[in-house]
Amino acid sequence: MRAMVLKGTALAVEDVNVPAPGPGQVLAKVRACGICGSDLHAAKYMDQMMSVARAQGRPGPSEAELANGIVMGHEFVAEVVTAGPGAEQWTPGTRVTSMPVLVTPETDSGMTAIGYSPVYPGAYGEFVLLSAPLVLAVPDNVSDIVAATTEPCGVGLHAVREAGLKGGESVLVMGAGPIGLMTLIWLKKEGAGLVAVSDFSPERRELAAKMGADLVIDPKTTDVATALREALTAAGKPTLPGTLGPAPDVVFEAVGVEGTLQQAMDVVSPRGTVVVVGVCMNEDRITPMTGINKQLTLKFVLGYTPQEYAEALQAFADGAVDTSPLVTRTVALDELPAAFTALADPRDCKIVVLPNG
Amino acid sequence: MRAMVLKGTALAVEDVNVPAPGPGQVLAKVRACGICGSDLHAAKYMDQMMSVARAQGRPGPSEAELANGIVMGHEFVAEVVTAGPGAEQWTPGTRVTSMPVLVTPETDSGMTAIGYSPVYPGAYGEFVLLSAPLVLAVPDNVSDIVAATTEPCGVGLHAVREAGLKGGESVLVMGAGPIGLMTLIWLKKEGAGLVAVSDFSPERRELAAKMGADLVIDPKTTDVATALREALTAAGKPTLPGTLGPAPDVVFEAVGVEGTLQQAMDVVSPRGTVVVVGVCMNEDRITPMTGINKQLTLKFVLGYTPQEYAEALQAFADGAVDTSPLVTRTVALDELPAAFTALADPRDCKIVVLPNG
Repeated sequence: MRAMVLKGTALAVEDVNVPAPGPGQVLAKVRACGICGSDLHAAKYMDQMMSVARAQGRPGPSEAELANGIVMGHEFVAEVVTAGPGAEQWTPGTRVTSMPVLVTPETDSGMTAIGYSPVYPGAYGEFVLLSAPLVLAVPDNVSDIVAATTEPCGVGLHAVREAGLKGGESVLVMGAGPIGLMTLIWLKKEGAGLVAVSDFSPERRELAAKMGADLVIDPKTTDVATALREALTAAGKPTLPGTLGPAPDVVFEAVGVEGTLQQAMDVVSPRGTVVVVGVCMNEDRITPMTGINKQLTLKFVLGYTPQEYAEALQAFADGAVDTSPLVTRTVALDELPAAFTALADPRDCKIVVLPNG
Repeated sequence: MRAMVLKGTALAVEDVNVPAPGPGQVLAKVRACGICGSDLHAAKYMDQMMSVARAQGRPGPSEAELANGIVMGHEFVAEVVTAGPGAEQWTPGTRVTSMPVLVTPETDSGMTAIGYSPVYPGAYGEFVLLSAPLVLAVPDNVSDIVAATTEPCGVGLHAVREAGLKGGESVLVMGAGPIGLMTLIWLKKEGAGLVAVSDFSPERRELAAKMGADLVIDPKTTDVATALREALTAAGKPTLPGTLGPAPDVVFEAVGVEGTLQQAMDVVSPRGTVVVVGVCMNEDRITPMTGINKQLTLKFVLGYTPQEYAEALQAFADGAVDTSPLVTRTVALDELPAAFTALADPRDCKIVVLPNG
């Protein structure tokens, strides 16, 4: 089959073997797969990701395995082709998605991340293997494009749930990339109060406004803290003694570059929470005294629970959430390496590849 | 009266005016006052503390006020001398302590921190002003030395409460200075499981063992993570898939120098909590991916509630907590500047000054 293979930092579409479904596994034909920011990171920083994982006791793939290359892709909707032994409940033609995890009893942890394995190809190819117990049928009224956003939508839901909202909290989302916007969607659904979104890109700010942001801020031209003080004062939030004015109760850091974590700590309210959902691949600098003086909580979040993944998909089916505006275009498999480059330009938001045309 | 005055980074015992109690205030003669790590920091870093406070909208004292000097000292027990209008319920001779906060209606915030004000002298002098509504009588069976530790004991209690223990959590306390040891005391009382304490100083490790640590670790000679894996495995804690072995659920960072926050993030269990109670005055470096991969929560904590302060004092009276082993010596007021220097050597733990001999 054709698939995009990552070797070192090089991306190329090549022929690779179609995997065979083992017990409890399903082979599925990929209908659509979103490009995730983590894949852009991985294409740049795979070595670093592996060394951090090893330091934490997760040995990960060998150098030899890495040299064979990795087929990434973990935000997918696919169509069942064949089922391995014990997975026959999944009949050919069924549209499905799944958390990007393959049950692999032969490995130490018993699980392999779909899209980050040199052994099992991810969904940037014509076919992908899934584990039957994790497979979810995609309801008929959910388009392929929207179904392919289940995974990042689950990330946004999880980030919001981890913030532990009680209702009415004022929020700043830093960064209107796919994860920032998914976070915005769920904040509005889960009872947050005023939600502001900051991003340098006019296209992404426009998307944020379309997706329900109460305030969009261009940090290049506007002081974010000042804009928030004004908006929150207008919304009736009181000024705490010893502060310049009201500040957001929660800040979601969805940028993930050096410096943004301290910016989040600077702008959040005393006793506030910073939810770190952006992945900064490098060492970063913070001023701990900011955290101490303001008695902040920092929550680093990752992924979602199986329930949250299923809930995101169901929200599409129920019409409660529509992520289609986030998908700015689709590409064919051959165009995928170029799309990775294009995403450095934030005029695109989510690009979805259609590996089978 | 005699008092130790901080001007810039210079400490000297000088004559200063005895403050006069205003409405709702009490003038008290200081019986004992502990030297706090924050005071050591302040003597080095006052300029930096002020600039951070200003950036956060708390203007603080003017340069001119700072030039007059500050009488620090906020861990005190004192004896009522005279009461201002409306504070007559406090009769002369009563032994008292108080949260180090003076109600000052003339200021923007309405409150002044006792021990960090260039206007109101703190308790490193013969007399101190207190606000009647915050004053607590010291029970007769609590010695001056122990009563003078109410404040740091409240800090330890608050740090432990902020960790939100459910019971049985395994814990590492990094640093066996006064705050680390106060944290240890409350961890054992509030239902933590195995509590390990790490410190480079043999004297402080010995104190930690005496105060109830289940394990003391010298990070100079022992790999902390390995020692914890072994101890927690022996205690029956399971190894999570994909990890090298069990790790503490909560780590209290009570050192507060550059690098210790990342060490705490490295050693804590996945999904664990790092409570930052040590105050690092400088910019620090962390690897956010450690937090993301392990889905960590960082809680920066400061101070205590009025209830926690009162609870610490009551715990002394009830015999539930004895902090006397932490006080390694007392000094006279004239010896106080030298004691600041001596505390750079961690053979001392808490030094208490007796300003009235």
